Amino acid sequence: MEVIRAVGEMMQAAGRVRAQGQILGLVPTMGALHEGHLALIRSARRECGVVAVSIFVNPAQFGPTEDYAAYPRPLERDLSLCEEQGVDFVFHPQAGDMFPGGYSTYVEVEGLSEILCGASRPGHFRGVATVVLKLLSIVRPHRAYFGEKDYQQLVIIRRLVKDLNAPVEVVGVPTVRDSDGLALSSRNEYLSAEERQKALSLNRALLAGKAAFEKGERSADAIEKVMKKGLEKAGVVVEYVQVVEPENLQRPAKVSGPVRALVAARVGKTRLIDNMLIGG
Amino acid sequence: MEVIRAVGEMMQAAGRVRAQGQILGLVPTMGALHEGHLALIRSARRECGVVAVSIFVNPAQFGPTEDYAAYPRPLERDLSLCEEQGVDFVFHPQAGDMFPGGYSTYVEVEGLSEILCGASRPGHFRGVATVVLKLLSIVRPHRAYFGEKDYQQLVIIRRLVKDLNAPVEVVGVPTVRDSDGLALSSRNEYLSAEERQKALSLNRALLAGKAAFEKGERSADAIEKVMKKGLEKAGVVVEYVQVVEPENLQRPAKVSGPVRALVAARVGKTRLIDNMLIGG
Repeated sequence: MEVIRAVGEMMQAAGRVRAQGQILGLVPTMGALHEGHLALIRSARRECGVVAVSIFVNPAQFGPTEDYAAYPRPLERDLSLCEEQGVDFVFHPQAGDMFPGGYSTYVEVEGLSEILCGASRPGHFRGVATVVLKLLSIVRPHRAYFGEKDYQQLVIIRRLVKDLNAPVEVVGVPTVRDSDGLALSSRNEYLSAEERQKALSLNRALLAGKAAFEKGERSADAIEKVMKKGLEKAGVVVEYVQVVEPENLQRPAKVSGPVRALVAARVGKTRLIDNMLIGG
Repeated sequence: MEVIRAVGEMMQAAGRVRAQGQILGLVPTMGALHEGHLALIRSARRECGVVAVSIFVNPAQFGPTEDYAAYPRPLERDLSLCEEQGVDFVFHPQAGDMFPGGYSTYVEVEGLSEILCGASRPGHFRGVATVVLKLLSIVRPHRAYFGEKDYQQLVIIRRLVKDLNAPVEVVGVPTVRDSDGLALSSRNEYLSAEERQKALSLNRALLAGKAAFEKGERSADAIEKVMKKGLEKAGVVVEYVQVVEPENLQRPAKVSGPVRALVAARVGKTRLIDNMLIGG
């Protein structure tokens, strides 16, 4: 496994892989790898001859009051995990090389970025879209792997890639959950034991919404109400609970085909998100 | 010469060129080709094994009150000129293929896009940056050629390419002028004979500014005043007259190194721009 820090070196290494006719897969991460990331890496490993994992805590996607400085950075552990998974390249650039002085260019996927998580995190998806476009440009993978856990992010990246004619296939990988149902997230480590119990309400609320649909409920309003009630009962602070069309994130009044149920809530100081396919 | 309309077909053709190890040059244009464009094409022809010219009147860079519909589109003539210059590929996509329904992604080079021409043309450089990034992604040229005539555009594209790690060399080509000094522009054909005489004041004002510098004037204010006076005397409506640093477009108080003098003015209903290196 080769660990590369310099942008230019990564571009050259990736160029050599493509020139050899190998299929190159990229798994962009912010590190603090857990089983969710490992599922992305395993998918890439199965489908690509060469696998690159990027580890970069992207300052452009954190708001001024968010946890950029505190975000976990267990690099040695992350590198061991990558090694165990048979990763070929880890790209671990410095913030000052990705966003040097005078940096001015930002990408925005309009319409999809201001809603849901974007409403409480202004600029977040602009930062995500920008860094993903940069990573795609540096590594130029044939396939790039993203978790369904960050569902809005996945939809935005699919749109970005399509709109900008980026020659890459975006692969969405299902959310990995702990045995108690909690969706894996690097931010779960902020939770106390008590908070972790409360956090289970996100998954349970989604399951309750899904159950309501399966019992015949077709009103988005009613499904959202079921979910919201469960979250409030558990004592978490609901940020949003919404049923949306899978590709454009628009809220339907009636649920006729497959939709995604999305929730965001604060458990103590920790903001968590989760989502589930309903009717698919 | 091959004329390609479909985005996917252009991507494939360009991919074949690169796979053959050929150097691919792209000259992005909006058509209505004149000697200025031909200078870009000749530079590309000299430096690249394969030359692609794109002809696309980009709706995203025109404001609602601007001349998108009226912009000249002499396609047959453009194709003949390309053929004469030994162009290999003309990429002439349809607006609906470049910006299909649901299109949402825009690129912005902040700081450089809101000033000068951007101040009177909000969204213009966002549209330029977006379409250039798309063209670079579709054609993936080794080199891309832009005229110094659109100086702010050139600076923005250089910044965009650097910031987004786009693997392309941006080549700036000097402005081509008619024998009377008028900078060539597809919009010159809007001018009446009388207006064309007035339009000469742009080049003359720049030359006067340059002469003032060469006689020892170092105050940006004073150099701008000289230029402005010439324009006003000629009876054109000045939009801006500015001396700026070549790379960041910031206005220095004192001119110590090489700067660009930039002018924009309306001659009748036609908006014209021109610029000149001073002290270089």
